[in-house]
Amino acid sequence: MKSLQDKILKEGCVLGNDILKVDNFLNHQLDVAFLNEIGKEFKNRFENKKIDKILTIEASGIAIASIASQHFGNVPVVFAKKAESKNLDKDVYETKVYSFTKAKEYSVKVSKKYLNEGENILVLDDFLANGRAALGLKDLVDQANANLVGVGIVIEKGFQDGRALLENKGVKLESLAILDSIENGTIKFI
Amino acid sequence: MKSLQDKILKEGCVLGNDILKVDNFLNHQLDVAFLNEIGKEFKNRFENKKIDKILTIEASGIAIASIASQHFGNVPVVFAKKAESKNLDKDVYETKVYSFTKAKEYSVKVSKKYLNEGENILVLDDFLANGRAALGLKDLVDQANANLVGVGIVIEKGFQDGRALLENKGVKLESLAILDSIENGTIKFI
Repeated sequence: MKSLQDKILKEGCVLGNDILKVDNFLNHQLDVAFLNEIGKEFKNRFENKKIDKILTIEASGIAIASIASQHFGNVPVVFAKKAESKNLDKDVYETKVYSFTKAKEYSVKVSKKYLNEGENILVLDDFLANGRAALGLKDLVDQANANLVGVGIVIEKGFQDGRALLENKGVKLESLAILDSIENGTIKFI
Repeated sequence: MKSLQDKILKEGCVLGNDILKVDNFLNHQLDVAFLNEIGKEFKNRFENKKIDKILTIEASGIAIASIASQHFGNVPVVFAKKAESKNLDKDVYETKVYSFTKAKEYSVKVSKKYLNEGENILVLDDFLANGRAALGLKDLVDQANANLVGVGIVIEKGFQDGRALLENKGVKLESLAILDSIENGTIKFI
């Protein structure tokens, strides 16, 4: 997606050799008009697929999934929860995800009410790096006996192993921008 | 907002005498078409106000603010962050908020880049109870020397003291549904 690559080049900020910050439009401040472009492109990528629900994970996935839903006929969005909350149902699907960014394992949960057998689920998220969050969401979909139609990612770190892990499990993966490298402060796309 | 009251009565779930769960459309699963009705109503409530930016707090505020932005000419949305993240800027406005739900104080931060002097800020959030989160967001706006135009809340617990705290500080507060009580499993609106 050319306009996304341009936006990353213009507004992204590289830290070290493996962190790309896009806080200006995706992870802290949100450019809602641009999120609609992203949502439209996800619809193009999964054009002929039946999607019943979009699954994402808090917090950065929520805006992407909510805006994208409008391009998929306003299908319900469900966001998996990371934190402990005394208000969350006890009756949940749960999986463990290791975060390299935060250097710890955390629990990810979805109430069983909101993922149902046979539903066609599209997973959307902001970044794909080591693929642990996406695999965790796939695990939740599998536990519910729902169908994972595919995974849509805004920015993929092509130099990490997330894609290989997902494709080895037969997941259809669509990333709108794929980073080849971000070494020495220079952003290169595949 | 009558349609919101109806939806709360139909889909809400009361726990004890003070917790209303609306996970079905607002806090876990998201009804995006309905969020657009909510966004449209916020626009009505702040019709003649100039809004430059919408400020909310992760996680449940993000979808509300993102969808609402579309009814305010796609103004940027900024979501304040709760968790520690090594990727967040060091240069932040920070405030402390006590959560009664989680029974602990937590730190809320916004990068200084995304709140600027003189900007007209609308704060949106899902619930107002004790008002601590809203006051924390007001504090961030004040630190930036920005203007707090008002606070828009989807569901206010009218039996708690959030409104008094905010109005004592001169904040314009608009809540789309105000709960009078949720005792004995019965939801009553003001």
